[in-house]
Amino acid sequence: MSGNVFGKLFRVTTFGESHGVACGVVIDGCPAGLDVDVSDIQKELDRRKPGQSSITTARKEEDEAKILSGVFDGKTTGTPIAIVVYNEGHESKDYDKLKDVFRPGTADFSYFSKYGFRDYRGGGRASGRETLGRVAAGAVAKMILARKGVSVIAHTKEVYGIKADAFDEYEIEKNPVRCADAKAAVLMEKKIADVSKSGDSVGGVVEIIVRNPLSGLGEPVFDKLDADLAGGLMSIGAVKGVEVGDGFGVSALLGSFCNDEMYVGGGELRHRTNHAGGIIGGISNGEDIVLRIAVKPTPSISKEQCTLDVSLDEKKIKIEGRHDPCICPRIVPVAEAMVALVLVDQMLRGKVARVDEL
Amino acid sequence: MSGNVFGKLFRVTTFGESHGVACGVVIDGCPAGLDVDVSDIQKELDRRKPGQSSITTARKEEDEAKILSGVFDGKTTGTPIAIVVYNEGHESKDYDKLKDVFRPGTADFSYFSKYGFRDYRGGGRASGRETLGRVAAGAVAKMILARKGVSVIAHTKEVYGIKADAFDEYEIEKNPVRCADAKAAVLMEKKIADVSKSGDSVGGVVEIIVRNPLSGLGEPVFDKLDADLAGGLMSIGAVKGVEVGDGFGVSALLGSFCNDEMYVGGGELRHRTNHAGGIIGGISNGEDIVLRIAVKPTPSISKEQCTLDVSLDEKKIKIEGRHDPCICPRIVPVAEAMVALVLVDQMLRGKVARVDEL
Amino acid sequence: MSGNVFGKLFRVTTFGESHGVACGVVIDGCPAGLDVDVSDIQKELDRRKPGQSSITTARKEEDEAKILSGVFDGKTTGTPIAIVVYNEGHESKDYDKLKDVFRPGTADFSYFSKYGFRDYRGGGRASGRETLGRVAAGAVAKMILARKGVSVIAHTKEVYGIKADAFDEYEIEKNPVRCADAKAAVLMEKKIADVSKSGDSVGGVVEIIVRNPLSGLGEPVFDKLDADLAGGLMSIGAVKGVEVGDGFGVSALLGSFCNDEMYVGGGELRHRTNHAGGIIGGISNGEDIVLRIAVKPTPSISKEQCTLDVSLDEKKIKIEGRHDPCICPRIVPVAEAMVALVLVDQMLRGKVARVDEL
Amino acid sequence: MSGNVFGKLFRVTTFGESHGVACGVVIDGCPAGLDVDVSDIQKELDRRKPGQSSITTARKEEDEAKILSGVFDGKTTGTPIAIVVYNEGHESKDYDKLKDVFRPGTADFSYFSKYGFRDYRGGGRASGRETLGRVAAGAVAKMILARKGVSVIAHTKEVYGIKADAFDEYEIEKNPVRCADAKAAVLMEKKIADVSKSGDSVGGVVEIIVRNPLSGLGEPVFDKLDADLAGGLMSIGAVKGVEVGDGFGVSALLGSFCNDEMYVGGGELRHRTNHAGGIIGGISNGEDIVLRIAVKPTPSISKEQCTLDVSLDEKKIKIEGRHDPCICPRIVPVAEAMVALVLVDQMLRGKVARVDEL
Repeated sequence: MSGNVFGKLFRVTTFGESHGVACGVVIDGCPAGLDVDVSDIQKELDRRKPGQSSITTARKEEDEAKILSGVFDGKTTGTPIAIVVYNEGHESKDYDKLKDVFRPGTADFSYFSKYGFRDYRGGGRASGRETLGRVAAGAVAKMILARKGVSVIAHTKEVYGIKADAFDEYEIEKNPVRCADAKAAVLMEKKIADVSKSGDSVGGVVEIIVRNPLSGLGEPVFDKLDADLAGGLMSIGAVKGVEVGDGFGVSALLGSFCNDEMYVGGGELRHRTNHAGGIIGGISNGEDIVLRIAVKPTPSISKEQCTLDVSLDEKKIKIEGRHDPCICPRIVPVAEAMVALVLVDQMLRGKVARVDEL
Repeated sequence: MSGNVFGKLFRVTTFGESHGVACGVVIDGCPAGLDVDVSDIQKELDRRKPGQSSITTARKEEDEAKILSGVFDGKTTGTPIAIVVYNEGHESKDYDKLKDVFRPGTADFSYFSKYGFRDYRGGGRASGRETLGRVAAGAVAKMILARKGVSVIAHTKEVYGIKADAFDEYEIEKNPVRCADAKAAVLMEKKIADVSKSGDSVGGVVEIIVRNPLSGLGEPVFDKLDADLAGGLMSIGAVKGVEVGDGFGVSALLGSFCNDEMYVGGGELRHRTNHAGGIIGGISNGEDIVLRIAVKPTPSISKEQCTLDVSLDEKKIKIEGRHDPCICPRIVPVAEAMVALVLVDQMLRGKVARVDEL
Repeated sequence: MSGNVFGKLFRVTTFGESHGVACGVVIDGCPAGLDVDVSDIQKELDRRKPGQSSITTARKEEDEAKILSGVFDGKTTGTPIAIVVYNEGHESKDYDKLKDVFRPGTADFSYFSKYGFRDYRGGGRASGRETLGRVAAGAVAKMILARKGVSVIAHTKEVYGIKADAFDEYEIEKNPVRCADAKAAVLMEKKIADVSKSGDSVGGVVEIIVRNPLSGLGEPVFDKLDADLAGGLMSIGAVKGVEVGDGFGVSALLGSFCNDEMYVGGGELRHRTNHAGGIIGGISNGEDIVLRIAVKPTPSISKEQCTLDVSLDEKKIKIEGRHDPCICPRIVPVAEAMVALVLVDQMLRGKVARVDEL
Repeated sequence: MSGNVFGKLFRVTTFGESHGVACGVVIDGCPAGLDVDVSDIQKELDRRKPGQSSITTARKEEDEAKILSGVFDGKTTGTPIAIVVYNEGHESKDYDKLKDVFRPGTADFSYFSKYGFRDYRGGGRASGRETLGRVAAGAVAKMILARKGVSVIAHTKEVYGIKADAFDEYEIEKNPVRCADAKAAVLMEKKIADVSKSGDSVGGVVEIIVRNPLSGLGEPVFDKLDADLAGGLMSIGAVKGVEVGDGFGVSALLGSFCNDEMYVGGGELRHRTNHAGGIIGGISNGEDIVLRIAVKPTPSISKEQCTLDVSLDEKKIKIEGRHDPCICPRIVPVAEAMVALVLVDQMLRGKVARVDEL
């Protein structure tokens, strides 16, 4: 398997399986002189970790980050930053009975057929636990963005048909759904709890907003900012769709409506509307970047399902254990991380766009 | 600017501006021994070229492909394949009056602010003409896929709220909209013509289906098949959203519904449904791969719009000339090309997944 | 075949075979705003072209460069720069009798066994004609370096045991050997002519000096400046060795001698000696960068040699035609080009070393 | 800093500083199903570790490897393999007095000027301790090569003018110099001990031989096998030169002598001589691959030297502590590792050379 490296200049390599010794990440290409406090990384990992609330998995893992290299006297030295989180509570035995069975909707069969061999314990590398490394690296990327006043905020926009209408940024971390609309949050939470009780799971939509983004980010033709963002977000396990600005809504719109009119505001070129979601021609135009991702229902459910085993014999399966009935709240920090990684990578790449700035 | 290279093993570099000398592509990494006939490349370019029908731009360009290297005695030699299309009918003067004005909804301002300098003739590198190189390279990729029985078919699924219900593959190339539903095609064509008359443009949705895809394509974690496809498709100029399988529909679905049940069919593991769109855990599972892209209305419209010029003075603008009122029909071959490029790249990468196959 | 792309940010893709339609290069990542005059590219190509003197091959090719994209109004736009040189005088028939025979010391057998198929006309892609693309791209790289006052100068240091002692930069282009020592040049020229008459060829050493190099170029650990230079130079067909500074001489030296003592000169940190050849710890230290490459004798000789054909039958072979008895004079511009490409690539990469410069 | 990733398909990212928490490596792209025993990795690390003999540094470090991911039930799963070695005996205080002084011949000044900040403890990332990750990854690469019968053997060929004449492979690990000539080894050992006593250090030459190499490895044009090997070997800290086959010797040779004559041996195409060192046209031809590297004298010596500090004031410096008077014996396993990494990377890349093998 290759494919565990993300980014071109801010290059992130993640490693680790669900029930292996440790998960982690190495960041190659972080500029020197950045103040890094491990507690800022831990804060992001805590937003991702299991057992946060009644509607996330009940597994308890502390997920404590340790920095192994690349930081000296509290500052990055320009050398690779390795961050590791040791796995705990290896209850691998729980998985022995799933050893030969392909869980529906998961990567079990894909990995088995591709590699001829798989670490069947809790999904192995295909487990969502893999996102630990993304979140840790994303935390470092956010520190770089913060120096420029850029912030990345994600929130659960929709769960099983229940949509958030209001948007109060400060509400997001106050409810277990990470919804920016307090009223919708209550409905969403109840829906998730109900579905969970019935042994099932639900999908949703998460929106990511970049405030005060730098303009000029993005490299045409193939490495457009939105192309990199789409690739990065779609690489998150449960994501089945990505859209920017008006997204799929554009199919029913006219050009005269979609074109964001320019005007001068505060001495700068601004746009009266933001149908484009802050990206035109693959390059950020300075307006908020607005993205949404479609999140599928967690495939691991306790309802009985039909499936096959490695001998292609039919099996009935009930996936016991502690799984998230809706992964949206925990995908929020992962989506933020991926967006931050893309932004920083493009920011670095953009430093060499003009010969008179070399 | 970097960003003009796509793929890791089947690596494609495109070049060329709308009104420059030529557009083209170099393919590095095409295996040796492939039969290549330039007419097969030309056939794909002809599907992309302007002036095909009453609802595409009336510009007439022959877009004749020439192979400069990499093919000897009708076969690829394993060396880089350079394909070039000379530009003709440079009516650059048409663009002189747009020299200092930022056309709304286009990359004009983005490029100007990023590079401090831009080729203003017809969008320069940001013009859709850039996709010539993609389509030429995609034609070669399709030849490799064809050897394995894999085909990539795109069609216009939706235009301004009009949806195709039926799907008749043989209908697609028969109508100017490239819609697989003959009845919907008539409605779409009329709508596009009407909108065009009013000086406006419309968006739509294009669907891409991969028939008989190889299973096992895709490299976890970041280079998942769907991640690469999303990145590749979103890199096409007008695309604002990408989804796989049920896509954004998953937000209102239950896990028990979304999980595609496995069974044994024809001696092989198959799935009774295809909510996943043929990709699970980032790896193709052998079922049809189903993707959809949201295509925004062409920004170049003849209706009067307000905008700014390089001095940030307000201007009124009417974009004369011959522009596509709906780009969906011409995006169809481009989307197929991008999907073919990703599939071949992943196919090559997948050859080294197991040590016992080395 | 992959492997036709060089560089990470200033990324160069070359294409073309000896007797194909054209040779060329696409540069992705050239910053915008650089003044480019095609005659500056032509000047470098002219230094590389055959038929320059009595001791280079007598083939006559004009090798005229055409820029297809990326330059507008005399300046780079930041988009890919494609440069093409059409091949002329395809005397492919000359090669028909070599079709099935492996010429000793050439890539004939290597290519045949690797790709199962080869363009046998004049070496195809393995021909030195491939370096056209390198030299054209190197010419652009030199323009970027010139803005910073950096120059790259190569010269023939040794031919068949005859060593240049004196170094007069202005002498180099005055003699056909491109030797900086006028007296040694005469001896070298005579030796080459003699060897040529006897149907044989000779090797030599070419030295490359970078004057006024920027300090701080090079990315530890694997992309050290000297590592990139060694890889780039060794990728030139005839090169069998690369050394920096004292090079292989270090094996007989003491640490106390090799360590270049630092002092303050002109307010800057300088070194009293330059045993390191301007690179320490993989990073340029501001002193002249000094490199040498070992150039093997051209394998194509008219003396009779024993060899095999594709059926593994023994053959006698005399390689007729016009070949360079000593390739050093024509490698000089190629070596300069490769060094310039590496320097510019590292210069771009180095722009993001510190967070406070972002 | 970027530059800590090596390889294209067998992609290795190393991390760690001399006196940080840990050093290590992540291998992305190792095929699934390879038997991996941590003791085989440890065996290679033990050949690299300090304190092995009287002529290596007296520092004692156990350098115990731990596998954190990518191996399950003794086999690689195809997921990234993370290997970590915790640092011990951090005697950082020893380095406090060197904090502001640039040690001659080291990367101290280069890093300081490039990053504006450096981890001064024992060289930080520029320390030879960085090679731990290379050797661990190389051990895994060697396991893949061993399956194909390929072996990589390095030995000290020359120390301060004393050359090994005999070559007895089994002698290498028997003497502390790792010389394949028992008699020369005695002389070399004595020379190193003498020089060490005088507070100085010496350079040498290490030769690397690949036995039974696969033919067809190497990707023209820029990623030739010898180009990749030269880049990889030159990236090792103390290396100032790399040569293949006759290397710099070719400068005094004739083409008729250098061209290795082909014949049929054992039913296969073979070569009567090996002036090319097993690589022609950048592709391995099946003969032994023969490389040599020039190794400079360790810059850290206890003799008094003049230098500057960060304020550019002159200082006298004696580097106390335990340093290798000749690094050749410890470079031997590092050079083998780099060669193994290149061979495996090229072996994987070569699997997609022909379309009929896909």
